[in-house]
Amino acid sequence: MISLELIREISRSSPTKIVLIVLDGLGGLPDALAGRTELETANTPNLNRLAAKGICGLIDIVGRGITPGSAPGHLALFGYDPVRFIIGRGVLEAVGIDFSLEVGDVAARGNFCTINKAGLVTDRRAGRISNDECIELCRLLDGLVIDDIQVLVCPVREHRFVVIFRGEGLDADVTDSDPQQTGVAPRVITAPQPKASRVADVANRFVTRAKKTLAGHYPANMILLRGFSQRPKLPTMGEIYRLEPAAISVYSMYRGLARLLGMEVLKTGTNIEDEFTTLKQNYDTYDFFFLHIKGTDSAGEDGDFERKVRVIEEADRVLSSLISLEPDVIIVTGDHSTPAVLKGHSWHPVPVLLCSKWCRPDRVSEFSESACVSGGLGRFPATQIMPLAMAHALKLTKFGA
Amino acid sequence: MISLELIREISRSSPTKIVLIVLDGLGGLPDALAGRTELETANTPNLNRLAAKGICGLIDIVGRGITPGSAPGHLALFGYDPVRFIIGRGVLEAVGIDFSLEVGDVAARGNFCTINKAGLVTDRRAGRISNDECIELCRLLDGLVIDDIQVLVCPVREHRFVVIFRGEGLDADVTDSDPQQTGVAPRVITAPQPKASRVADVANRFVTRAKKTLAGHYPANMILLRGFSQRPKLPTMGEIYRLEPAAISVYSMYRGLARLLGMEVLKTGTNIEDEFTTLKQNYDTYDFFFLHIKGTDSAGEDGDFERKVRVIEEADRVLSSLISLEPDVIIVTGDHSTPAVLKGHSWHPVPVLLCSKWCRPDRVSEFSESACVSGGLGRFPATQIMPLAMAHALKLTKFGA
Repeated sequence: MISLELIREISRSSPTKIVLIVLDGLGGLPDALAGRTELETANTPNLNRLAAKGICGLIDIVGRGITPGSAPGHLALFGYDPVRFIIGRGVLEAVGIDFSLEVGDVAARGNFCTINKAGLVTDRRAGRISNDECIELCRLLDGLVIDDIQVLVCPVREHRFVVIFRGEGLDADVTDSDPQQTGVAPRVITAPQPKASRVADVANRFVTRAKKTLAGHYPANMILLRGFSQRPKLPTMGEIYRLEPAAISVYSMYRGLARLLGMEVLKTGTNIEDEFTTLKQNYDTYDFFFLHIKGTDSAGEDGDFERKVRVIEEADRVLSSLISLEPDVIIVTGDHSTPAVLKGHSWHPVPVLLCSKWCRPDRVSEFSESACVSGGLGRFPATQIMPLAMAHALKLTKFGA
Repeated sequence: MISLELIREISRSSPTKIVLIVLDGLGGLPDALAGRTELETANTPNLNRLAAKGICGLIDIVGRGITPGSAPGHLALFGYDPVRFIIGRGVLEAVGIDFSLEVGDVAARGNFCTINKAGLVTDRRAGRISNDECIELCRLLDGLVIDDIQVLVCPVREHRFVVIFRGEGLDADVTDSDPQQTGVAPRVITAPQPKASRVADVANRFVTRAKKTLAGHYPANMILLRGFSQRPKLPTMGEIYRLEPAAISVYSMYRGLARLLGMEVLKTGTNIEDEFTTLKQNYDTYDFFFLHIKGTDSAGEDGDFERKVRVIEEADRVLSSLISLEPDVIIVTGDHSTPAVLKGHSWHPVPVLLCSKWCRPDRVSEFSESACVSGGLGRFPATQIMPLAMAHALKLTKFGA
């Protein structure tokens, strides 16, 4: 396997530009009637033109049969072995709201939820309370000190918040309190190893305090915590690829992930068109752009086949503005599949297209799962996307004499 | 990954014969007008017949996106992981001129070059001086002893020579003096680690002496050194595969590489037909032949699309004489791509065909980059060519009970 160390050795800075467009959860499955996936159903003249001019293939994100979460999905796309580099959900949420996570902090993703009188979870999202209410409730829980550990509580949006445990010698290897289902009680947080027992203890005491504080705040009368984690040590994309990378995403988590990898996060608006406008406005300043489109995944998760089709079509429309900039390399792919019929992430390989002056075109003239099967890029691990992008941008020197 | 150790365990000697034909830099890119690569443009009835009868695919030499040098390219074809086994340019040049490199010798590739009065390089190849002049100048520089280290200087051809530093406890981990560009001064050779500081020091003193000696020999009034290296420890092909391997190449560097791997280097002439004649003459004596064709790469490096097409067509013509010998396995491939439009090595995968009585034929009936995409061998690492060749020659026993 080609290591990041090898790539770092042969990478060189150059004025060429790479744009990586990630349609979150792009890959799909056919609907029962027409037998076509979301991408195959969508009318995508621009993507098809790029596919015809460029080269296509299918990527495995973690490995065949493995369904990736959002973090491993994106890490793989950026060239980081997602099995080697693990980023916890708590860390992702924290960096996603610009919380300045210190080395050693333990972060967890929190949900305000609803429990009934028997203490069983009836709604894991407390009816998706408003942002304002989230801010207000976080203020009630924030600022405790338990066993010398500072407990910081920050709102994210709706029912979501982050809790950060700050103190000396903390270990994040504890279980979730979130049972990921309704009809059961929140779980007690436990530490499989003694080194994390202090964090488990403090977290449980925090949950107990929160339950008391929230008692009168139905439907947000309890909290669920998951993804306890600490900031991992990662080489930045600038260090590895000698790039000046920028990230554009409407969603905080992806901005946070990009920031962890040393990307400059660009301010953008609320929809796909805003994201492409942001790219254009900053085009001269960076040589790598990660543009993230969330709607495909959200629609897939909701089981809304038609909406996923529409998001793909919208992305295709605004793509024309990018094509006119003539970046040296355009890559369009996803961080995993989210077939509407499965209502969730899946293990299916993700179509990818790469368009560049220096690609060897194949016979694929349509960007779809079934056409990509016979694409010239073949089927390959997602971690090889970045070396391919770098090569086609002529940013990699020769390996060996 | 299948290790050389595993292959060694299951390899057995047998009378069957394998011929591996390497068209250097075979893979190409389409020209702007016709949209066909060099191989797709060439008229290749024999290669197409082999492709139809055999099985095709595409190989990655080092990995997707990685552009290999000649040494890693060939090492991979012979089954040696090119990231694990590194052969320096100096060693390659030395063994390529039959210089008998001792263990511990440090070899560097040298160029006679031109510098101006300000000491800046104006021509990295000194106008490609004649072989005779190269021999004469090497004689002037040869035979120094600096700090108890013997400095041997041997001509290669035109502006190229090899310098060998011979002494006790030398380490080759020093930087190049060759800046790989004009308009700048030759670089001072440095040692990143103290253990190599003596070699750096002696090499710098040698360069200074050479500059004085060559002062009146414009355009060859200076030297550039690069690729300081020592002979690596490699298992031979005989040890791994239990083969009696022979190498046929018009070019010294490939003969040298073959010799490092324990191949017998056969005397041959100056063109492709000579090489095939040599093969025929020695057909009974060996059971593995590496036949190297350089012209494809040279034409690609020169950006000469038409010449590359002609070299491929010439190779195709003489191939008929080999086919009539009916070797048990014929493989035709390249050590990397050298698209004429890129005028250099590239990362693009290389078409490969394998023809044997025991292959499972696919539907590919034409040897070309685009046809090989859908070949039965699929897309795979070049290091798996040798196990495939051995298997089809029935030279590998079963693995496991």
